[in-house]
Amino acid sequence: MNKKIKPQTLKGFRDFLPDEMRIRNFVLGVCKEVFESFGFEPLETPSLEYASTLLGKYGEEADRLVYTFKDRGDREVGLIYDLTVPVSRVLATYRDEISLPFKRYQIQRVWRAEKPQKGRFREFVQCDFDIFGVASPLADAEIIAVIYQVLKKLGFDDFKIRINSRPLLFSILEEVGITEKNQQLEVLRIVDKLDKLPEEKLIEDLQKKNLSYSTCDRLLNMIKQTVPDENTERILSYLQAMGLEEKYYCFDPTLVRGLDYYTGPIFEAVVGDSKNSVAGGGRYDNLIKQMGGPNVPATGCSLGLDRICEILSERGSANKLNQAETQVLVTIFDESLVDESLKLTTMLQSMDVFTEIYLDPSAKLDKQLKYADRKGIPYVVILGPDEIKSNKVTIKDLRTGEQEMVGRKDLVNFQFSNPNFQ
Amino acid sequence: MNKKIKPQTLKGFRDFLPDEMRIRNFVLGVCKEVFESFGFEPLETPSLEYASTLLGKYGEEADRLVYTFKDRGDREVGLIYDLTVPVSRVLATYRDEISLPFKRYQIQRVWRAEKPQKGRFREFVQCDFDIFGVASPLADAEIIAVIYQVLKKLGFDDFKIRINSRPLLFSILEEVGITEKNQQLEVLRIVDKLDKLPEEKLIEDLQKKNLSYSTCDRLLNMIKQTVPDENTERILSYLQAMGLEEKYYCFDPTLVRGLDYYTGPIFEAVVGDSKNSVAGGGRYDNLIKQMGGPNVPATGCSLGLDRICEILSERGSANKLNQAETQVLVTIFDESLVDESLKLTTMLQSMDVFTEIYLDPSAKLDKQLKYADRKGIPYVVILGPDEIKSNKVTIKDLRTGEQEMVGRKDLVNFQFSNPNFQ
Repeated sequence: MNKKIKPQTLKGFRDFLPDEMRIRNFVLGVCKEVFESFGFEPLETPSLEYASTLLGKYGEEADRLVYTFKDRGDREVGLIYDLTVPVSRVLATYRDEISLPFKRYQIQRVWRAEKPQKGRFREFVQCDFDIFGVASPLADAEIIAVIYQVLKKLGFDDFKIRINSRPLLFSILEEVGITEKNQQLEVLRIVDKLDKLPEEKLIEDLQKKNLSYSTCDRLLNMIKQTVPDENTERILSYLQAMGLEEKYYCFDPTLVRGLDYYTGPIFEAVVGDSKNSVAGGGRYDNLIKQMGGPNVPATGCSLGLDRICEILSERGSANKLNQAETQVLVTIFDESLVDESLKLTTMLQSMDVFTEIYLDPSAKLDKQLKYADRKGIPYVVILGPDEIKSNKVTIKDLRTGEQEMVGRKDLVNFQFSNPNFQ
Repeated sequence: MNKKIKPQTLKGFRDFLPDEMRIRNFVLGVCKEVFESFGFEPLETPSLEYASTLLGKYGEEADRLVYTFKDRGDREVGLIYDLTVPVSRVLATYRDEISLPFKRYQIQRVWRAEKPQKGRFREFVQCDFDIFGVASPLADAEIIAVIYQVLKKLGFDDFKIRINSRPLLFSILEEVGITEKNQQLEVLRIVDKLDKLPEEKLIEDLQKKNLSYSTCDRLLNMIKQTVPDENTERILSYLQAMGLEEKYYCFDPTLVRGLDYYTGPIFEAVVGDSKNSVAGGGRYDNLIKQMGGPNVPATGCSLGLDRICEILSERGSANKLNQAETQVLVTIFDESLVDESLKLTTMLQSMDVFTEIYLDPSAKLDKQLKYADRKGIPYVVILGPDEIKSNKVTIKDLRTGEQEMVGRKDLVNFQFSNPNFQ
């Protein structure tokens, strides 16, 4: 008896079969295209680094999530946890090769030993783009413009980029008397839920941080009524000059963002009514130095590849994408006619029609048609003895079931409509 | 005193700065385009698998090269060593989702704890494409055709794909009396060096395997004089029907290839006079089952990304590639004219001219020009008070140093020649 155990994948790790891969490749293709059109340059770094490079950068909680181990040479190593530590190392290592301003994008797998749960994985692709060496809010505006163009090019017409300022938030905290750094961060983490939780719940949570009811109430009201500070005003005016449609972005004084290291503007993008952001970032002028890099101002953004793919799938926009590129399958009648089918395939390919030949000459026509159907190939070409004799081919449209005989010479004029661009 | 230690990368691991990344992206872009034009579908799998999935598949020597460790849940895990074990697991796991024939490509990082040496790394990108479920030599011919098209599209005109047959080699070994399986493999590993070492050296090495001088001599002569067997003839005739130019491929009875698991046709591609192959593969009908997958025939190929990039760099073909895509840098005169420069940038971008704006309004023009020069951006647009007054812009060609004033309205007709397509 066959007692073979089925091989398993690790929890929190995923296989991406072709249908899913095509959506991912489409999204990453759009990202790269937009990044490069703005002059961002590609960068990649190792997946493994010395553990000492990775640990002690984001605090104890994050350290526990880093996959560390001893390699075969007894070195303490770790799988990268994000792309910020690696780029900080790169900025430190290649001071001569990299001149500032440096605009880079980096798309790589990272690993975190988190508790696996819905939408959270132990291995995922991080998609970052950042500008190093520019303190001007023009750089922040450009980051926002890139998010805007990526979401537009992905076909979303209901996204919103919320923009706020960390200094503005801190000034409000100080105004209501919250001046201690740790208390400020704790309060911000609660305020961050302003769009997710009812206000009473928030005030309740805030009171637990040793704040009076009236302070809490005043704080929330002030935050909601805040107007943009000068720096934010400049960003908004730059966005206008860049021609971004105003319905897609707004100043939102309630935006906080979770990470503590932001020092200036912060931003986040959502699509539709979802609370989960598809992009988030901001300015982090002190972080690169803390991470082991040089003292350079920095601003940037992380795109949520998984979240974007999920929305595309939910909306069915992915249906157009998750089928093979192939437009035509050339079938094989039998072993004696392989060469004829091959020549026809080559001819169609030379006409820039994406054409595949079925690879098993012994397979029945029915099986060949099923293959085309499964792969979403719209046209099948049949080339049997009758067709050879009359110097024609039979073209079958699998979507309609219709078929017609076409002269070989007329093939150049046949319109193989691409299903992806109908 | 600052006693900060410069962070190091691990030996055998690499950073890819933008210039190198552009070459890599170009090569991978060509690969994907060709793979998909032949109907190969993308697949990705986890970087970490249970150690039990990875070990015991390629023998003890390979097992020692797998990065294994205990994860935080005390599971024995490992970084993938190749893409064949993962695809075997995928074929076993998704029997219902994946119907045969299955043509997939997979481009992922893999890890091997090898002794680092020139051209050998502990982390590298494996670029595989394979056909599962087809026993016909038509599938082998298609794999060869894909290699051919990739190398053509990369711009190589001096490549050669060598084709041979493992069964043919074994039949010769049996004919000279070498019938024991292990001895056969040992002999083949020596014969593999026929194109690299002098014949006397080979005979010397062969004699150490308990063979007489006359057997060795007869073996080498037979190999060199062998003609294609029936299966190889069919592959060659398919290639002809596909329209592959004959100067780019040949039957080569001296080709052995290192890996022991091949069961049918084998092939290898070299560029120029180099002995190092840029692509290698063959048929391996029993391997997927051995690796834990179903019992399916398989044929495929691995492309040598690093080797291909190296040749492109050596030949200077990479010069065209390793510069930014940006065609125009719009400079900023001062803070008061940022909006003017932004609007101009947006206008050029809407004309599909890849345009960047310099992001620091306080930087001197000289610094802005240096940035364009370093990035290989050919044109710089200057927009100062004089230009604003006359409703013109100054366009400077950094390659020639020439500059001219152009009316804003005439910009649409200005030919920004793309340096990458000159």
